[in-house]
Amino acid sequence: MKNIGFIGTGIMGKSMVENLMKAGYCVSIFTRTKEKAEDIINKGAIWKESVAECVKDADAVITIVGFPKDVEEVYFGEKGILANAKKGSYIIDMTTNSPKLAEKIYQEGTKKGLHVLDAPVTGGDIGAKNGTLTIMVGGEEEDFKVCYEIFQAMGENIVYEGNAGSGQHTKMANQIVIAGTLTAVCEAMVYAKNVGLDVKQMMDTIKTGVAGSKQLEVVAPRILDNNFEPGFFIKHFIKDMGLAKEEAVERGIHLEVLEKVLDMYQTLEEDGKGELGTQAIIQYYK
Amino acid sequence: MKNIGFIGTGIMGKSMVENLMKAGYCVSIFTRTKEKAEDIINKGAIWKESVAECVKDADAVITIVGFPKDVEEVYFGEKGILANAKKGSYIIDMTTNSPKLAEKIYQEGTKKGLHVLDAPVTGGDIGAKNGTLTIMVGGEEEDFKVCYEIFQAMGENIVYEGNAGSGQHTKMANQIVIAGTLTAVCEAMVYAKNVGLDVKQMMDTIKTGVAGSKQLEVVAPRILDNNFEPGFFIKHFIKDMGLAKEEAVERGIHLEVLEKVLDMYQTLEEDGKGELGTQAIIQYYK
Repeated sequence: MKNIGFIGTGIMGKSMVENLMKAGYCVSIFTRTKEKAEDIINKGAIWKESVAECVKDADAVITIVGFPKDVEEVYFGEKGILANAKKGSYIIDMTTNSPKLAEKIYQEGTKKGLHVLDAPVTGGDIGAKNGTLTIMVGGEEEDFKVCYEIFQAMGENIVYEGNAGSGQHTKMANQIVIAGTLTAVCEAMVYAKNVGLDVKQMMDTIKTGVAGSKQLEVVAPRILDNNFEPGFFIKHFIKDMGLAKEEAVERGIHLEVLEKVLDMYQTLEEDGKGELGTQAIIQYYK
Repeated sequence: MKNIGFIGTGIMGKSMVENLMKAGYCVSIFTRTKEKAEDIINKGAIWKESVAECVKDADAVITIVGFPKDVEEVYFGEKGILANAKKGSYIIDMTTNSPKLAEKIYQEGTKKGLHVLDAPVTGGDIGAKNGTLTIMVGGEEEDFKVCYEIFQAMGENIVYEGNAGSGQHTKMANQIVIAGTLTAVCEAMVYAKNVGLDVKQMMDTIKTGVAGSKQLEVVAPRILDNNFEPGFFIKHFIKDMGLAKEEAVERGIHLEVLEKVLDMYQTLEEDGKGELGTQAIIQYYK
């Protein structure tokens, strides 16, 4: 496989396109606002005027867009992927997306002779940039094997999780963990500040022990620097947590910590903070 | 310093006594139930019949008992530490204890010419056994320096946090982090099982990414093995979270995730599960 059609060049997508080009792939791109893609166009990505144009000659199509409604649009519209992709090509949705929608794309795509995988990622902006993403893949195992080299250009920990939707379900589990972990770290920081501890020293002390986590090591220091820039947008995290909650509730389960954290983030979004990074949850306590 | 009086030889205390003896200290011990200490008595710890006997000749006294009321008792009773310790000796409470009580011991102890430190630990049963505990110390910095060698026998990450009570406050922050992190990991496991993922594979996939934590790596596998033995008792965790909540609420702060997790654990304790390990929080979802 040589030609990749890539749709959605946001924070994550741009770095992924760069890494695909470094690995030798020809990458055509489409995203909603061309201006925002100019840096990677200058680096060699080929601009296409529509989704249809972007996918029609591609051996593999990769999408990483914002919300399930965006996924619906790029896949199922008249000018969308399923109507325009080359028969036999590989279609990989790397958006964190509804597991149900992943299954629907798989079913409809399969009918049209396409090989469909759901392959959401984790590792954030830094992982995308360094090509060290974790990629969680659902679909047919054969298709996973064919696309393994493509995944290797973008990630390091690449795992076949099972049937269509299993990549998304694994990502949901990942987001459930992050929801509680990050908020817990923030609560400890709020506590430490209010009781008069040196917050950074507290973090340095506990991070090597059983309280240690990547959120504490990587995300929390941004809070100390008053850096609320989005490595990962609150609005996207709310979408993910909402999907996870919905899947759980349908099965009669209440993930109470997840639901609490989701409520807290929704409060922040109502306060106009949806465009901040997830670490801004600390502002909930102010 | 050579002679240590050690009070409280539970899961943690026993391993700490062993490590002190390995480092060359003479350790006298007292604990509520002598039978439970017989293994370390056989290894060379000297049994004393009372707190007073245990501390009267000690250069340094270490306590690690269950609850603040136990701390009150061993410190402030007529036969307690403050009334019987040798003038000029070092008094180190390693129980996870109320910061307020730590300050009180410091104040009363100082009046009697004792050097008082609060020095709670983290690292669990494994850290205690391997001598790799994190030790968070509050009190006078001079006293911390004098006791550094003693701490080195039991731990690796040994940090002076500030005034009396600061060790306890740092430990509170640590427990706040663990509360949310462990529960989040459990919720992801519950989710994964219910949507039909391979739970262990999900954990292996996400643990190297931004969802990674010590709780996920070290504690969660016990759940997969259906091992609910106490590395750390639920009843003690409830005590710690209660202390943290109280300190926060006094300062007008609601740590909502902490409060939610505390409620969940209290439900388990009401169901008679206070003697299980903290990982048994997964049973809340059954």
